[in-house]
Formats: sequence, structure tokens, C-alpha cells
Amino acid sequence: MEEGSLTGLGLEFSKRRGEAIRLELRRVLTARRTPYQQLEIVEALSCGRALFLDGKIQSAEEDEFIYHEALVQPAMVLHPRPEAVLVIGGGEGATLREALRHRTVKRAVMVDIDAEAVAACREHLAAWHQGAFADPRVQLLHRDARGYLEESAERYDVIVVDVTDPLAGGPAYRLFTQEFYHIVLAHLNEAGVLAVQAESADLGVLEPHLAVARTIGSVFPHAAAYNVHVPSFGESWGFVVAPRERHPLDLTAEEVDRVLAERGVSGLRFYDGESHRRLFLLPKYLRQLLAGGAPVITDAEPVFVA
Amino acid sequence: MEEGSLTGLGLEFSKRRGEAIRLELRRVLTARRTPYQQLEIVEALSCGRALFLDGKIQSAEEDEFIYHEALVQPAMVLHPRPEAVLVIGGGEGATLREALRHRTVKRAVMVDIDAEAVAACREHLAAWHQGAFADPRVQLLHRDARGYLEESAERYDVIVVDVTDPLAGGPAYRLFTQEFYHIVLAHLNEAGVLAVQAESADLGVLEPHLAVARTIGSVFPHAAAYNVHVPSFGESWGFVVAPRERHPLDLTAEEVDRVLAERGVSGLRFYDGESHRRLFLLPKYLRQLLAGGAPVITDAEPVFVA
Amino acid sequence: MEEGSLTGLGLEFSKRRGEAIRLELRRVLTARRTPYQQLEIVEALSCGRALFLDGKIQSAEEDEFIYHEALVQPAMVLHPRPEAVLVIGGGEGATLREALRHRTVKRAVMVDIDAEAVAACREHLAAWHQGAFADPRVQLLHRDARGYLEESAERYDVIVVDVTDPLAGGPAYRLFTQEFYHIVLAHLNEAGVLAVQAESADLGVLEPHLAVARTIGSVFPHAAAYNVHVPSFGESWGFVVAPRERHPLDLTAEEVDRVLAERGVSGLRFYDGESHRRLFLLPKYLRQLLAGGAPVITDAEPVFVA
Amino acid sequence: MEEGSLTGLGLEFSKRRGEAIRLELRRVLTARRTPYQQLEIVEALSCGRALFLDGKIQSAEEDEFIYHEALVQPAMVLHPRPEAVLVIGGGEGATLREALRHRTVKRAVMVDIDAEAVAACREHLAAWHQGAFADPRVQLLHRDARGYLEESAERYDVIVVDVTDPLAGGPAYRLFTQEFYHIVLAHLNEAGVLAVQAESADLGVLEPHLAVARTIGSVFPHAAAYNVHVPSFGESWGFVVAPRERHPLDLTAEEVDRVLAERGVSGLRFYDGESHRRLFLLPKYLRQLLAGGAPVITDAEPVFVA
Repeated sequence: MEEGSLTGLGLEFSKRRGEAIRLELRRVLTARRTPYQQLEIVEALSCGRALFLDGKIQSAEEDEFIYHEALVQPAMVLHPRPEAVLVIGGGEGATLREALRHRTVKRAVMVDIDAEAVAACREHLAAWHQGAFADPRVQLLHRDARGYLEESAERYDVIVVDVTDPLAGGPAYRLFTQEFYHIVLAHLNEAGVLAVQAESADLGVLEPHLAVARTIGSVFPHAAAYNVHVPSFGESWGFVVAPRERHPLDLTAEEVDRVLAERGVSGLRFYDGESHRRLFLLPKYLRQLLAGGAPVITDAEPVFVA
Repeated sequence: MEEGSLTGLGLEFSKRRGEAIRLELRRVLTARRTPYQQLEIVEALSCGRALFLDGKIQSAEEDEFIYHEALVQPAMVLHPRPEAVLVIGGGEGATLREALRHRTVKRAVMVDIDAEAVAACREHLAAWHQGAFADPRVQLLHRDARGYLEESAERYDVIVVDVTDPLAGGPAYRLFTQEFYHIVLAHLNEAGVLAVQAESADLGVLEPHLAVARTIGSVFPHAAAYNVHVPSFGESWGFVVAPRERHPLDLTAEEVDRVLAERGVSGLRFYDGESHRRLFLLPKYLRQLLAGGAPVITDAEPVFVA
Repeated sequence: MEEGSLTGLGLEFSKRRGEAIRLELRRVLTARRTPYQQLEIVEALSCGRALFLDGKIQSAEEDEFIYHEALVQPAMVLHPRPEAVLVIGGGEGATLREALRHRTVKRAVMVDIDAEAVAACREHLAAWHQGAFADPRVQLLHRDARGYLEESAERYDVIVVDVTDPLAGGPAYRLFTQEFYHIVLAHLNEAGVLAVQAESADLGVLEPHLAVARTIGSVFPHAAAYNVHVPSFGESWGFVVAPRERHPLDLTAEEVDRVLAERGVSGLRFYDGESHRRLFLLPKYLRQLLAGGAPVITDAEPVFVA
Repeated sequence: MEEGSLTGLGLEFSKRRGEAIRLELRRVLTARRTPYQQLEIVEALSCGRALFLDGKIQSAEEDEFIYHEALVQPAMVLHPRPEAVLVIGGGEGATLREALRHRTVKRAVMVDIDAEAVAACREHLAAWHQGAFADPRVQLLHRDARGYLEESAERYDVIVVDVTDPLAGGPAYRLFTQEFYHIVLAHLNEAGVLAVQAESADLGVLEPHLAVARTIGSVFPHAAAYNVHVPSFGESWGFVVAPRERHPLDLTAEEVDRVLAERGVSGLRFYDGESHRRLFLLPKYLRQLLAGGAPVITDAEPVFVA
């Protein structure tokens, strides 16, 4: 082989059955097994540092802003005055960072089961958390989020569920069921909003996304599925936002921009009024599939990602 | 390695520097060098049949509808009554297919330099062209499109440029310059619309897309860059539409749907009014980059894709 | 990625657990499922045409002479006057070719279960068989070799077993057991010699090789394991020769060369007297392992290769 | 993709043009650029820890004993009483280790230009050096070996050249030329022996091996090329030993074993009398190529490995 070929250190991850992405690496910052999952933090030539959990890309330096703004900002903007925020998962700290941009926020609780993974992110992914873990409004807990909610009476304005894929045998699948969303609903204030990372929205691997959207829609009145292309994933990633009061498309671009300005939100690179509209306008085939009959996920009949 | 690993026949293609996608193949339908380029038509486990030219994916069975509808339909809808259409490139025949959906079309000329590639597509990619080459409205020419335009006095309502990337040493780079777009403009009728495949719109490899948008914008008054995630590319693919009369965002979703209905357009899976709006609303960072100072591409200073 | 990288059509095959070889391909001559196995014949940049069965490399144009001469020639030379030869497997026809070089041979029977695979080799691998299938001394049968032997009373001077790896679920595993070797022994003439392809002789994957050697050694008095590096395999490939009368190291280099000359054997590129000596002198660690206690393979307790 | 595929951290290295080996990694112990070369020390699933310099595998935990014993032991045994040994290169410390096994050795000088690489090996590859660097007979120098020899009047009984491939632009190519071997000859005692790692002996990439053998043969009277299959390389690796007094095949297996016993050499796993004979008996095609007209490498006309 010639100079410049994709040799040397690499990381290959599955995109879907029969399809994989190979990244050329500059460095491996850490590769280890935590009590909960296999973790790698690497530095790739193409997309900078990147976090992998159980062989799946979580976010990359280059474009984590797209993923995290898309996950968090619509929910924050849809709430009239978010003061108490709960982040479930979100080990990199960037989900927290996005919530803290809104100066209305007085308290942000983050519950991530894997203390070792969070510590590795704090050490190696400073560009993600940007000090969010040290914000005085933040409380960080390492425990099972479902157990935490079941024992707690606290209510929140916005709850963001940013957990890993529901892998068979993994810990996350119980955070994608109808029973869990009922628990979440019971911990939201009146105008509360739920936002959920909801698996790939790509053709051919849509089933989990459709099922999560359908399941949340069976519990919340205004659940809206949306997605955004994340270059380092090579996929259009899906989310669901579920406001208790109004649908995301009820907001004009101008309203979104006004809310962001009123709350002193700065530093956004992906999200604003126009991006908000783009996010919630969906391609024809996807609207049709979302209107179709995906199954509701339950504790008894969970959905797993391969 | 275990059962089920990504072994066996494969095709690996570069996504960007330091990043590649590997496809597991079921079959290789043809792999050959035409007089103009290296061509492979394969059948992949993940995305069905797919066409590669000079090692770059052109379209795949699973999602070519997204690419081709996004390329062609906005331009067709933006013209008040498209009767004469010129397709430059578009060897698979699907670009032609999309134009022919509009019953206003009386004549469609397709100019693709590579007769051997077009013949291979006709043979192996019937799901793409769906008989478009045999439509009596179609005239198919195998010659250099720029030379063809320079010698012809014919004018068109819609011109679609669907050519391969401007590779150094390849034939396509002279179809991406300001001089070429001036030639195109001179062959458009009053309300004419140009649509161009305009390279990846992904972070990190945006320069060609920005330059094409800027160059077309230096010639056409209402040039609009847009993009859509194509799963088999693993990228969000960019286009530019340049209507002589009005901006794409001047059309409401309802107007788009009405035009499609009036012209008897059926069979669309990706495009409709809502998708039209989504296409032309762009993320914040991309709007900022498009507003910045990308270079104008000229015959003397062309842009090449690696 | 740059020019010259290992992109494009490829074939990746497992070398051992956690290790794979990727070949850049020029062409895929055929890829299909026969009634018995998955078959690919490709043309690789590095080693020319190559045959793969069930994802495992069988032989490559560049170095099949090493494999086939090493498999066949020692057995032929060890027999005082080989007239009747039986080849089991050996679909490429090169095993047959090697036996036919000895002008003492009057009759050569080849029994390969997979008629479709043999036909594909005849069509695409002419450099292997070099017309051997058309030799008037040859009889070609497509049936299970063990069944053939059980029903036949014919005896042979040399029997060469050149079958695919004993994969779980595959047809070949019953041709690697003690019971089978007893059947073979009963079909050998007094000075008869058995030669067997006997799996990789590489560290870390030696178990099947050791077990085959041990099993043949439990049936034949002078079984000798040997191996040779085959570049396209990236491995040192193992064989066992089992002469009924004398050990391979009883032959001097001069004796080997004299036998070859007497029988008019020409065209050998790998094998001669010096190579014969090299083949049967083994590294210290391998001699120690071969002397150790590998299990005997039986119909009841077969050995499978992953 | 399924469970168990070759995903995750990997290292891919070129075997030859159009052919690469991919290793699944457990860990990356270090990956860095020293002042002289790119260095990686990894732990692979298949072959344990392994050292890569400039993208080329140097040795692996599983089978470094084959490489290092084959490189060093024939030269040591061929000298009647080796007391002073010079190792050039050999950063892992295993070349030194092999020389120190002979209790005749009173002084061993190791000259390796890359102090940082040697330090990394000392830290991570203890199974290689096994404390050799701390042996009181050892002197370790970090400088250019050719310059060292040119300035020194010291003479040695055995000189082992274990340097990286002669890459264009790399530092090693001046240690493969006729001029260099004349310098070496001048620093050998009367019965002195030179041993050299001499590139792959695989078909298709033999040219450097043949040229090194020819070049040493133009300076030393009894130069003998030999090679051994190293599983982790996927190649048969070539060496040249050049005794001033007698040819390696003049030694019987019994003589080799007696010398090893007399010098109290223990712990060898690959090398002994029988392995010695195997090493120096070559396949027919390789003997023919070695007898053919390979070029002599000179400072003015060096040979580079791709």
C-alpha cells in the first residue's frame, strides 16, 4: 500500500448490519472496561476526540454541538421558564452544559450510573463539559436513574434522557419503556418538557426510533420526533421532545430567537429559530412511518438495538 | 474472528480524510474502467445495489429517491411551467425520471459523456431509471456537456447538473466554474431554473460546497444552497438551486403541494411541501459559512475534491 | 484518504481470531452459493486469482505451486512406483496436476463432492489445472468421498486428501477422523502413501493441526507432519504424509532428485531434494508440541475449525 | 454487524501492495512520534503485545522468540568462541538477550539511534528484554551506528544488524549498503560473523531481500540467506548470516546442539540443531532467485522498501 492509506491505529464501528465506519486515530486516550460498559476515548484524524461506549459512538469533538444543542435546546425553549432540570445519562457533561446556558435555571441534577465513565469524560473531554460539572447549580449523582426517580418526590421543568442505546444485556433498556415514561411524567411540573435521545432516524434501522416515538406519544400529548445529521455518526440522529403544553411547530422562528435572547443564551452554533423549524419539519416518508403502527415498548416487551 | 464479522467481499470508500465506510457485498455486478472513469455496480447487504464512479458512491437502491428527488423536484416546482429540461450527467437515469414525472415536460435532453457508464446503469439499475431512457420525450447524447451547450442555441426551462465530483484529472471540473454557469444561464428561458449537485455539506469537507454555492450566486440572483442526509453516503449532501425569478423559501408548503398535484406528479417518497421547507431552512453554522467569503471557482482557478 | 489507499473492492478473510487479511481486488470473477458452500473466485492485486470457499482462502495464482507441490510431491516420491492415485477434494485440479507429473501414474481418480465448484474452477482457474481434467488417465466423480470408499474395493498407491477445513456444519469434518483414516488405509496398496492437507501450523491456531497429525499417527506407522509458508495465506500451512513403509527423512536430497528425474517429473518450482529435507525438519517448539498429547479425532468427537 | 466482528480498536498494517493485516486491539500502550520515527506499542488479541515503527510490525509477544532466535543464534553458534558482540538497532532488547545467552560473551555493545524508542520498549516490553539492558556486560549507546563504527577501532566476534526497513527518508537505508558492510567487515575479528535482518523473503516482495543477500555476498565469502515464517508478520522473514570462515550448512545438527550445550545456552524455544538445518535449506525457487542477478546496494544506489 501507498503512503496515506488508512493504516495504523484505527477504530471501526458498526453503522448498521453490513456497514461500518473506520476512523484513523492519532491517539487512544483511554480504553477500558468500567463496571457498566466498554469505554474508549480516542482522537481521530477526521473528527477530533470521540467517546465510544460499548463500541458505539457517543459524540465527537467536531460536531457534538449539533447533537447536544439539538437534544437539549428545543425542550428548554418550549418550557416557559425552566428552573429545575434533570439530566439522565449525558456522561460527557455537554447535555448539562446546554441546559445551564439558560439563566432561568436554578438547579440541575445529573444522574449517570457510571462514575468511572463520567470521570474519564471530565478528564479527557473538557471541550464538552466546559466546566459544567463545577457549576454551583449542579448536583451529580451516580446511580440508576429509574430507581432515583422512583424514590424521589422532586419535580422538574425539563427532563433530558441522554442514555446509551438499549442493548440487550445493557443497563439502559429499562429507560426506554412506557412504564419509565409514566414515571418521568409524574416528575414533571405542569408545563414540563421531556427530551430523549431516540436512536438513529436512518432508513433501514428506523424501528427503534419509531418505537420510542410511539411509546412516548402514548404517554405525552404533544410528542414530536425529530432528527439531525451528525457527520461523525454518518447518520441522521433521532430525538423525541414531549412538551406537556404545546407542539414544537407552534413556535415560529422569531419566537425561538426571542426566548433565547431573553434568557441570555449565547454560544449556540447549531440551534436558533430557523434550525428549530428545520428540525421539526420532516421528510414525507418519515412522517408516514411515524404515523404507522410501531409497537409500544414496555418493561415486558422491550426493544433492543443490535 | 467470529461468525458474522464484516468479512468476505467488501467495498471501502473514503468519506473524508481519515474516515472510510466499508460495505459488505452480496455481489459485484460489474467492475470496469470506462474511457472516462472507474465504475463499479455492486449489491451491498445494507443498502442494495449501488453505483460507484472513481471510488465515490453515486447512489444506492435504498435511498436514491432521497438524493434524486431533492436534486430535481425543487427546481421543477420553482418553474411555473417546465416544458424543456436538460439533464447534464445523471447516468443512472433517475434524474431524468424525476423530471419526467411533471406532465408539463415535452422534451428532456440528457447529455452524459460516458456512454459505457450509462449502458451499465441501464442494464443493472432498472429500479433507478424505471424506463425513463425509453420515454419518447427523451433525447440522449453522449458528449461533453459544455461543448454541447456552446454549440447549441436551444434554451431550457430547467437545467439539472448531476455530474461527478470535480476530481483533479477528471472530466467534471470544468462543469463547476463561473464561466460554465454563465453558459448555462444563457441557455435558460426567462423563468428558467438551474439545479446542481453541489458536494458534501458536512463539517470538515464543506469548502467545495461553499465554493459552488458562492460561484452560482455570483451568476444567478436567487441561488439557494440546501442539503439532505443520504444514509448510504453517511453524509448530508449539498445542492444549489438557482431560480431566475424567486427564492425557494418564497414557496409555502401548500403551494408546493398544489403544484405537484396540478402537474400529476405521483410516486414521490421524500419530497412534498413540508420537505421543501425543511430543505431550505439551514442550520445556523451553515448559514454563517454560506454568508462568508468562499472563493469563486473559475476556469483559471478551479476547485478540486480529493 | 489519499490516493493509493486500500479502498475500492476488497475481500477480507479471517487469519485467526482478532486478525484478518484484506485484499484489494481487481475483479470478482464469480461469487455464489453452491449446494455445498459459499464460493468466490477473485483477482487480487497482490496475489492474482484466488479461490475462497466458505470465506477461507484455498489457493492463489501466485503461490498455489508451493501449496500443491508440498501436498502431493512428497507422497508421490515416497512411493516406489505410484500407478493408481486417488485425489479426494482438490477442486482446483492442481492436486491432480501434481500427481499426473509422474509418468508411472496410469489411473487417477478425483472425488470432489461439489460439481459446481469444480466447474467454476475449470472455467476460471486454468492456470491451476492446466488441462489435468482432460487427461485420459483421469476419472472425475462428484460424490461424498467417504461413501465412495466404503462402497469401492479399489486400492490405490497414493491417496491425497485435499478437502476444506472441518467447519462445524460443513461436509468435510467426517474426512478428518480416525474411522475415516482406517477406511483410507484399507484402500491403500502395500507400499501405499497417504497425504493430507492438515490445517494451519501457526502458533495460536495449532490445535487442529496437532490433532490431525496425532489421529493419522494412530492409524499409520510413519506419519510425518510438515508445513510450508504460503504467502497468500499469511500462514505456514500444515500437512501430514503417512507412508506405510518408510519415514520421509529416510530419503536423502539426492534420492528425491533421482526419483523425480527417473519419472520424468518436470516443471516443479518449489519441490526438489533440498526442499524435501527442509519440509520435514521442524522447529523445536513444533516438534515438542507434536510429541505432546493432542486428542485423537473420532466420528464421535470431531474437531472443528472456527 | 453482528457481535464479535472485528470492530473496535484496531491496527492495520500493510503486508505488501494491495494487502493489509488488521489486528483487533485490547490496548494501546503508547503511540507517539520519536525524533526518528512513529512508534506504537499495542496489545493485540491475536498475538499479544507488539511493536510498530513507521507502521511496520517489528515483533510480537507471541512469536518474537522465532524472529530473535533465528536472527542471532546461527551467528553465535557459527563463531568458535564469541566474546565481544555488537548489536546495531534491536531496540526491544531481545536481540541482546539472545546474544547474552552464550556464557562466552564478555562484552555486548548495543547501538540504537532512538533513545526514546528504546526507553518505551524497556517500559512496555519486559518480556522481550528480560532484564538484558541491566546485564553488567552490556553497554548501550544512542547514536548513528555507522558513525560509531567509523570512529571506533574496536573489533567484535559477532555483529548483529537488526535495524528497521530501509524506508525512503528513514535513517536505516545507509546500514544496508556495500560501503557499510565493508566498514562492518573491518570491525570483525578473524573468525567474526555478521548477521542481518534482511527483509521479507515472500514471493512478490523479494527484491530487497535478494539485494541485501547479494550485497553482503559481494563483501563476505560465506554469506547465506535464510528465512523463517513469523506468524504475526504473516510473512516468511529473511536474514543473512555471513561467517568469515565456514558456511552454515557445514554444521551438522549434532554440532549445533553440542555448541549450545557447551556454552550453557538454555531457554531456546525455536532454535536447535534440527531448526538450524531447516533454516539453511531453501526452496528451489528461492535458491534460483538468490543465484540470479540482484543488484548490489551502494550508497549511491540504495534500495528502499515501500
